[in-house]
Amino acid sequence: MRIGLDVMGGDYAPSAIIEGAVDMLGGLDNGVAIVLIGDENIITAEIEAHAPPNGNFEIVHASQVIGMGDHPTRAFSEKRDSSIAVGYGMLKKGLIDGFASAGNTGAMLVGASYSVNVIPGIFRPALAALVPGIDGNTSILLDIGINPDTKPDVLLQYGVLGSMYAHYVLGTDNPSVGLINIGEEETKGSSAVRSAYELMNDNPDINFVGNIEGHHLFGGRMPDVIVCDGFVGNVIVKEAEAFYLLCRKRGINDPFFERFNYENIGGTPIIGVNANVVIGHGVSRRKAVKNMLLQTIDVVKADLANKIKDRLQNGKY
Amino acid sequence: MRIGLDVMGGDYAPSAIIEGAVDMLGGLDNGVAIVLIGDENIITAEIEAHAPPNGNFEIVHASQVIGMGDHPTRAFSEKRDSSIAVGYGMLKKGLIDGFASAGNTGAMLVGASYSVNVIPGIFRPALAALVPGIDGNTSILLDIGINPDTKPDVLLQYGVLGSMYAHYVLGTDNPSVGLINIGEEETKGSSAVRSAYELMNDNPDINFVGNIEGHHLFGGRMPDVIVCDGFVGNVIVKEAEAFYLLCRKRGINDPFFERFNYENIGGTPIIGVNANVVIGHGVSRRKAVKNMLLQTIDVVKADLANKIKDRLQNGKY
Repeated sequence: MRIGLDVMGGDYAPSAIIEGAVDMLGGLDNGVAIVLIGDENIITAEIEAHAPPNGNFEIVHASQVIGMGDHPTRAFSEKRDSSIAVGYGMLKKGLIDGFASAGNTGAMLVGASYSVNVIPGIFRPALAALVPGIDGNTSILLDIGINPDTKPDVLLQYGVLGSMYAHYVLGTDNPSVGLINIGEEETKGSSAVRSAYELMNDNPDINFVGNIEGHHLFGGRMPDVIVCDGFVGNVIVKEAEAFYLLCRKRGINDPFFERFNYENIGGTPIIGVNANVVIGHGVSRRKAVKNMLLQTIDVVKADLANKIKDRLQNGKY
Repeated sequence: MRIGLDVMGGDYAPSAIIEGAVDMLGGLDNGVAIVLIGDENIITAEIEAHAPPNGNFEIVHASQVIGMGDHPTRAFSEKRDSSIAVGYGMLKKGLIDGFASAGNTGAMLVGASYSVNVIPGIFRPALAALVPGIDGNTSILLDIGINPDTKPDVLLQYGVLGSMYAHYVLGTDNPSVGLINIGEEETKGSSAVRSAYELMNDNPDINFVGNIEGHHLFGGRMPDVIVCDGFVGNVIVKEAEAFYLLCRKRGINDPFFERFNYENIGGTPIIGVNANVVIGHGVSRRKAVKNMLLQTIDVVKADLANKIKDRLQNGKY
């Protein structure tokens, strides 16, 4: 298995990215290689500064960088030798099995759609986040920002995609699926969510448990898969970030709240494209990069993109 | 000033409601009276159990109760002698200046629309919540649940109504108004929110400061007024509730996080109807009831409903 890592993307690139990769080296399973993608001179210098003598990376040169503030579509099509474009090119050719970047999120999304493409049958790919539960449980929440206006059939498909992620990547058996709403009754909520409730309730391919509300988040009994449109999901994830920052400001040190620290979470997978791609937080440092790589390995091991493709080809949602 | 209090509504009614009212008695300004609305026998017995000998309440008898699980519209029209219907009747006749209840939220909303009515010119009334900020600041967030599907002109009007609440009730000078979105750029978000951005940005009557994101919530520099649709607002408020419960479960005692305790917040005013109405949390106990009454007094003192009416009659939003 070969995991491509964009060394040039992220607020603390390239040092933090190389540091995170170095931290991975010791614990890598046999047969897993990290491919560093970026400016070869910079990478070599960074490895010399950080890596142990037997640090065994592959390096693929990319002469350009897509900056954090660059216009995603323009940058991706104009900077053909950027680390992001080179990474997607390798992914498309099968030279790497997964690709991780803490760089420009928009460019990563554009690359996913333009380069490896959306899986046929997928209405809209989704960005997903892992949500920590008080009892040590973990749920997957999607979408967290790609699709702010979401139609009912897209919400249903998120339920299916989230169930596949929970099953294949997180190892959850028969994952339960909940729909974010403003009340538990099926008559509550926006028209899109009310229709989605009906579709999800009628669908035998998911284990739909009904509506859930904001106060069920982070609980021990929240569903394994939490579905919402990208607007609501984005606000949920960022409000959790706000709380984590408040805890820090108030000097609260608590192992549970540490699970809200993006550094411990890894990244957000793009679900529904023809390849395994994980996007890290722009402010990722050493530990966050390591966790992003671990998550990418999990997604590749689960062969998630192919599992989704197979399921859609077999006519099942 | 006379404040009507529904003694029969809420999970811990009537005892907790009377207890909260008793706690108010000592600190009441001259000229402020609490009118207890509900079953006279029950109220008399509760007052004997809880109130000091000089406890000076007015009692208005109501023979029926709208239960927490009753169908709002049906219950409000059928139970004409319920404490909620009687309270609204008094409000309409001017026998009380404000009305507070921790009872059936739906029935309180129905009563507001059917009995005292929406102020002409208001598209949709809103429920608002107070949001604590880390620096001791307080913002108002609206809508938090009445309108899950919200059009751009309604969002703009929320900005106006929230500004009036911040100004007249909270005493904030030239309150800043922010729009919840998934990014700071005006091109981000759902189509309704993008249009609302344009309307708000063009409107000289509010101090619009642009989009804010979930991680700006609870910060020292969050805007004084935070506008969103009722779906997003409901999730924001309930997620904050989830966090507060997590803090309690983890044994965290922190004065800032105590501001998230609904008991300390009071209630949620209905903004945009022809009267001053505050709805408390269904699980309100003694302290929450007291704070709900304090908030109702503030809203009445500010004469908020009339200020809104005047402003709309003068052709200003």
